[in-house]
Amino acid sequence: MPPPFIDLVKTLPASVPFVGPETQERQMGKPFRARIGANESIFGPSPKAIEAMRQAASDAWMYCDPENHDLRHALAAHHGVSPDNIVVGEGIDGLLGLTCRLFLTDGIPVVTSAGAYPTFNFHVAGFGGTLNTVPYRDDCEDPDALLDAANEHGARLIYIANPDNPMGTVHDAETIQRMIDNTPKDALLCLDEAYIEFADDGTAPAIDIDNPNVIRYRTFSKAYGMAGARIGYAIAEKNLAVAFNKVRNHFGVNRIAKAGACAALADQAYLKAIQQKVIDARAKISDIAAAHGLHALPSQTNFVTIDCGKDGDFARRVLGSLIDQGVFARMPGVAPMDRCIRITVGRDEDLAIFADALPKALMAAETE
Amino acid sequence: MPPPFIDLVKTLPASVPFVGPETQERQMGKPFRARIGANESIFGPSPKAIEAMRQAASDAWMYCDPENHDLRHALAAHHGVSPDNIVVGEGIDGLLGLTCRLFLTDGIPVVTSAGAYPTFNFHVAGFGGTLNTVPYRDDCEDPDALLDAANEHGARLIYIANPDNPMGTVHDAETIQRMIDNTPKDALLCLDEAYIEFADDGTAPAIDIDNPNVIRYRTFSKAYGMAGARIGYAIAEKNLAVAFNKVRNHFGVNRIAKAGACAALADQAYLKAIQQKVIDARAKISDIAAAHGLHALPSQTNFVTIDCGKDGDFARRVLGSLIDQGVFARMPGVAPMDRCIRITVGRDEDLAIFADALPKALMAAETE
Repeated sequence: MPPPFIDLVKTLPASVPFVGPETQERQMGKPFRARIGANESIFGPSPKAIEAMRQAASDAWMYCDPENHDLRHALAAHHGVSPDNIVVGEGIDGLLGLTCRLFLTDGIPVVTSAGAYPTFNFHVAGFGGTLNTVPYRDDCEDPDALLDAANEHGARLIYIANPDNPMGTVHDAETIQRMIDNTPKDALLCLDEAYIEFADDGTAPAIDIDNPNVIRYRTFSKAYGMAGARIGYAIAEKNLAVAFNKVRNHFGVNRIAKAGACAALADQAYLKAIQQKVIDARAKISDIAAAHGLHALPSQTNFVTIDCGKDGDFARRVLGSLIDQGVFARMPGVAPMDRCIRITVGRDEDLAIFADALPKALMAAETE
Repeated sequence: MPPPFIDLVKTLPASVPFVGPETQERQMGKPFRARIGANESIFGPSPKAIEAMRQAASDAWMYCDPENHDLRHALAAHHGVSPDNIVVGEGIDGLLGLTCRLFLTDGIPVVTSAGAYPTFNFHVAGFGGTLNTVPYRDDCEDPDALLDAANEHGARLIYIANPDNPMGTVHDAETIQRMIDNTPKDALLCLDEAYIEFADDGTAPAIDIDNPNVIRYRTFSKAYGMAGARIGYAIAEKNLAVAFNKVRNHFGVNRIAKAGACAALADQAYLKAIQQKVIDARAKISDIAAAHGLHALPSQTNFVTIDCGKDGDFARRVLGSLIDQGVFARMPGVAPMDRCIRITVGRDEDLAIFADALPKALMAAETE
């Protein structure tokens, strides 16, 4: 007889937030030709970060400093806050999980947007919270609707990503600041800024580090090109930041990742070059879409969401054909956003493969 | 007003399982001369693992395969089980946390030994379990006492490490098998085998993969020399292994670590060489202890626990002096084991520093 799981675990589905491209490759029996589906930075990390990680490989016998002292201090200087306001963790995914753990138990209400980041929902369910959703509005997350729902349900956590994934849309700093200001005093606004380095300057509202009702998540996975290194951070009011020490894996951060993150942060010139490459690639993807009569949504991220012009079934057929043709891409999961496909920016060679595959996919979707 | 943490979090202390050596170095204002305190493998990982990690550094832009397919398959072949029996995670620490999460909530009883691995206790508290402890017996964890306590308290989880940390002692396969056989049917025996590769052949009982009442933890942190890479695994009955998918961070494993682990596992010749180096170094540490009239406990791990021959206060003074002299070491935290200090095996140059510092530490402890 097996020992019984706790009741909460019994209610959890075995589903996963995302199927990895490697799983699809194994199912197809062939590798993808273009990996432009997971909003990874195919341009890679800074050469200085790569070199720091290569150097650190031979130091892998040592646990990482559990205080992540040098990285926290560097991040604090970068953001003009105290190191006590920085929580380093195993990517935003890990930090979202810890946040849920700190604030959620049986049925505590949470608010997010239907179709927003599924890993947040995975953690909410995993810690027993009750998820309430509001719809997107004009392909954007809807701050007013989120706040209204938070008040209605008495939500403890409110999630918003700015810029948004999977739509690539953005709210300006004033709108987000107003949302912060209007967050209920017994709630925490989980502001996911994973893509903020791709947005126009001034998109992020100024950090008010004494506000205990907002936590901001940043990552080395996107603009810094280190998704596989699993390192991100939260910027939070001091008492909240310290509370993570009660539940985090103190030795959980990979030493190589930490070395890479320090080097990546120090190489802001490389980040600037990446930002320009992403802007250029977004334009190219939009052009490819337009060449086939499709509208690409304006994006402030490292992906472009393309409106396929019909319903979700049509877009799913387009996506299926792209995948069959060796193009790893994804799409929004909820209507009406699921009329779109989502293409991560790539190098010219990746986009050429996409440009070749898209018309065939559209034709296949039409005639299927 | 800050949003309220859940009640459980309010009860958790801000303490950490271990203070890292880097923290001590910052406090002292100087680096340690010998890092022989955290049971890291100063001999390092296999050169093939280092090379694999160096190669993988430039692939760090890609998330790791969330199924960890190749590593799980390699581990399954290595252990003669199915890939469905292998859970790869962010070190044993991470896997212990997930185990607690699956099985523990308000006050569910757990049994461990007073003075055993504190990170397990950290996770038990962190998920609301109630920890019950039994004493060590003759410097060994006491399987009979653990089982008696498990029956008495109705424990859901029972923790034992074999070989044991911090004492380095070991039970033979028959004793552990008897413990497995006598584990209550509504309990899970958490068998931490982090140090098993350092033990004599035959120390680990055969894996009975259909037994849902035992889970075995292994790691690349110790014998494979990759503590800073944060990668370990559990071997478990299939339904238990699958349940981890409900709560784990699917994209939580570092891609570089995974590449290193695959290469390390494939290089069993290097592992054998390390095992011999560890045996040799254990003998040297015992000799150093004996040269100063101290008894070293027989060890089947990569550390040696030295009986300082007096009480805990004396041993703490010895340890304090070692640290002052630049030797990073640790000691058991609970009486009567705290009459000992714990020295991780090192290279000859590390042990020479220890050999030089020990008599001075003993003298300082005597006269203080």
